[in-house]
Amino acid sequence: MMNQGEKMFGELLQAVREKAPLIHCITNYVTANDCANMLLACGACPVMADAAEEVEEMTAHSDALVLNIGTPNDSVIPAMQTAGLRARLLGKPIVLDPAGAGATVYRTRTARLLMETAHPTVIRGNVSEIKALTGAANKTRGVDAAEQIAEENAAALTKMTARAAGSIIVMTGAIDCIADPGTAYINRAGHPLMRQVTGTGCMLSALTAAFLAARPESPLAAAAAAAALMGRCGEQAARRMSPQDGSASFRNYLIDAAYRMTPDELEQQEKELIKS
Amino acid sequence: MMNQGEKMFGELLQAVREKAPLIHCITNYVTANDCANMLLACGACPVMADAAEEVEEMTAHSDALVLNIGTPNDSVIPAMQTAGLRARLLGKPIVLDPAGAGATVYRTRTARLLMETAHPTVIRGNVSEIKALTGAANKTRGVDAAEQIAEENAAALTKMTARAAGSIIVMTGAIDCIADPGTAYINRAGHPLMRQVTGTGCMLSALTAAFLAARPESPLAAAAAAAALMGRCGEQAARRMSPQDGSASFRNYLIDAAYRMTPDELEQQEKELIKS
Amino acid sequence: MMNQGEKMFGELLQAVREKAPLIHCITNYVTANDCANMLLACGACPVMADAAEEVEEMTAHSDALVLNIGTPNDSVIPAMQTAGLRARLLGKPIVLDPAGAGATVYRTRTARLLMETAHPTVIRGNVSEIKALTGAANKTRGVDAAEQIAEENAAALTKMTARAAGSIIVMTGAIDCIADPGTAYINRAGHPLMRQVTGTGCMLSALTAAFLAARPESPLAAAAAAAALMGRCGEQAARRMSPQDGSASFRNYLIDAAYRMTPDELEQQEKELIKS
Repeated sequence: MMNQGEKMFGELLQAVREKAPLIHCITNYVTANDCANMLLACGACPVMADAAEEVEEMTAHSDALVLNIGTPNDSVIPAMQTAGLRARLLGKPIVLDPAGAGATVYRTRTARLLMETAHPTVIRGNVSEIKALTGAANKTRGVDAAEQIAEENAAALTKMTARAAGSIIVMTGAIDCIADPGTAYINRAGHPLMRQVTGTGCMLSALTAAFLAARPESPLAAAAAAAALMGRCGEQAARRMSPQDGSASFRNYLIDAAYRMTPDELEQQEKELIKS
Repeated sequence: MMNQGEKMFGELLQAVREKAPLIHCITNYVTANDCANMLLACGACPVMADAAEEVEEMTAHSDALVLNIGTPNDSVIPAMQTAGLRARLLGKPIVLDPAGAGATVYRTRTARLLMETAHPTVIRGNVSEIKALTGAANKTRGVDAAEQIAEENAAALTKMTARAAGSIIVMTGAIDCIADPGTAYINRAGHPLMRQVTGTGCMLSALTAAFLAARPESPLAAAAAAAALMGRCGEQAARRMSPQDGSASFRNYLIDAAYRMTPDELEQQEKELIKS
Repeated sequence: MMNQGEKMFGELLQAVREKAPLIHCITNYVTANDCANMLLACGACPVMADAAEEVEEMTAHSDALVLNIGTPNDSVIPAMQTAGLRARLLGKPIVLDPAGAGATVYRTRTARLLMETAHPTVIRGNVSEIKALTGAANKTRGVDAAEQIAEENAAALTKMTARAAGSIIVMTGAIDCIADPGTAYINRAGHPLMRQVTGTGCMLSALTAAFLAARPESPLAAAAAAAALMGRCGEQAARRMSPQDGSASFRNYLIDAAYRMTPDELEQQEKELIKS
């Protein structure tokens, strides 16, 4: 990916498995279990901790921090700020998942507050959530990605948002776009069933932190590798579906696929990313 | 169901899938993931949000509201009241799940408080929980449906409770009874394994909100359709069990069955409801 | 186990299924669903309740109490103290899961506070967590069992900690050690995949409470039986894995195995425990 003929994603996955980075997640209670299991499936090590009394210490032990505002409240937001500030001071990778930004003023404000406080390495959201970060005039419906966008617009939007935010942007949907201000990668891997399972976005945000922790010096490649892995897992899970299987089996197959993913397969996916 | 020869449930399921209603759940952390996945499996769109700062706005965007007191506390109860009041003023369907009412004074009081504040469209609980709402002298044991009841008593109890509460009552157990003050339907679909999985009641409460959102003008039919769907899914899941499968596989099969449910199958179930 | 030729574990499992003890869990939101489902799979009945307003009443109705500090905060810790004190006064079995003790000062302090307040019947943790309880100078990394220990050291450490704490100690890892001050049992059953699923430790803590509730007069045997069951389930789940299965399927198979476990199989496992 990154440069012609170079293969990084396989190595990145290997690095996650060897380093087994500790990922501190301050996240929602709806998908915390899925995020923990997805991290473990990939070889990372999750720890969920959200009390103001301990987040600084937990962040200091950890290799990366995830701030996911899926179920925000007035206890956890200050804890997120504290942890985010600490991670930033220590130079640890931070992923912000602005779940539901745009759906309520409270979430939009929280997402922007955390952008300012934590200066996240990566922000991972769906189209509506990413637009909400910079005040683009749309409306998020719940936490799911109803809104879709064309590839060329996705690249432009994510680059522009990356510039404005000072963060790498991972915008997910029917296609994913991973961008810093100068470069955008389009990832077409994935499957529509991923939208009929809660937490696929949250899981990707957690995975992104694991990849960043494994290779903090290449954050764009790490973010792209995580998105490529997730998309590939979605495709493999879909292929495994039997006629009686539904969305619950798909969720299991998705995590199973992450557990079984080989560096070679991930490199295959790397080749299919489109630079834009 | 509702009237002789009429088939509504298939259409109702179709309407859920077409409308993809946004269901605002203020619910417990034990089964929130299952509720979200069950809603998605049926074609609805879940959003969990319980901060007082945002519940009014989230409710206003949503097509129905679920108040589930499975893990109540003094932050979330006022948020439930606020959201409930808002939904009521906006005429949006509300489902109250009085999880554990009767087990502690705190839960019984919370359930009754929410009945008064929110005037729920539907209340869904097990026998002990439903009895606790009106002060019938029994004792709830935890959150599970130990107590059982005969069909004719179920019909009488739910009709009476529906009259007292001003809500449709869905009382679940070995048989389910769905009633307004004038009419009760008995649903015998289901399987004992449903009691060995946490959250089947919570999932039904969430599903009921989805069906109400799809057809708010026919709340009794919507509530009955959701119960029929859940029972049918339980039966299908049980049939799919292999000799090594246990309750975890059953949980997956239950959600898979909801994902695969066809309008025709649900109409089959509709025919088996017994009017009482 | 306990004495030569005696077979208790099968009977214990039978007793759990017959008594269907109500287990009050004050636990973390990451694995609460898994704990509830594991309890149900074994025939116990879970109730999660953590509001200060209701924990005393819920504990009073219950047959055992689980205090799991996986996601501690300043609301839930006082509720744990209140419930713990109540259970102790009523003579109900208490299991403390000091999840993450040693990882932050906050968790270590909380674990020790609960040891003092509740005098738990059993404390279940990994090597790092158990060491942290008595100030042994190591460092817990997140909530997962990175640290391993030799069998003879495990027996000595758990006996010593049991003496210091006045609780039975269940220390889990590549091997498990279950000890009171005088006797330690080594359980080698289990599978490395158990560490790639979140919550296997939490599930064991919950199960331990169920076994204690079934036979409160034999707490060491009850704790050993729960550990033996969990290890056996891990082995059975691993044998069931197909080439496409991964850690998510393993989690399901683990709970399925508990649901399918027979008294005879558990007695087989009992014979393989090593007294030390």
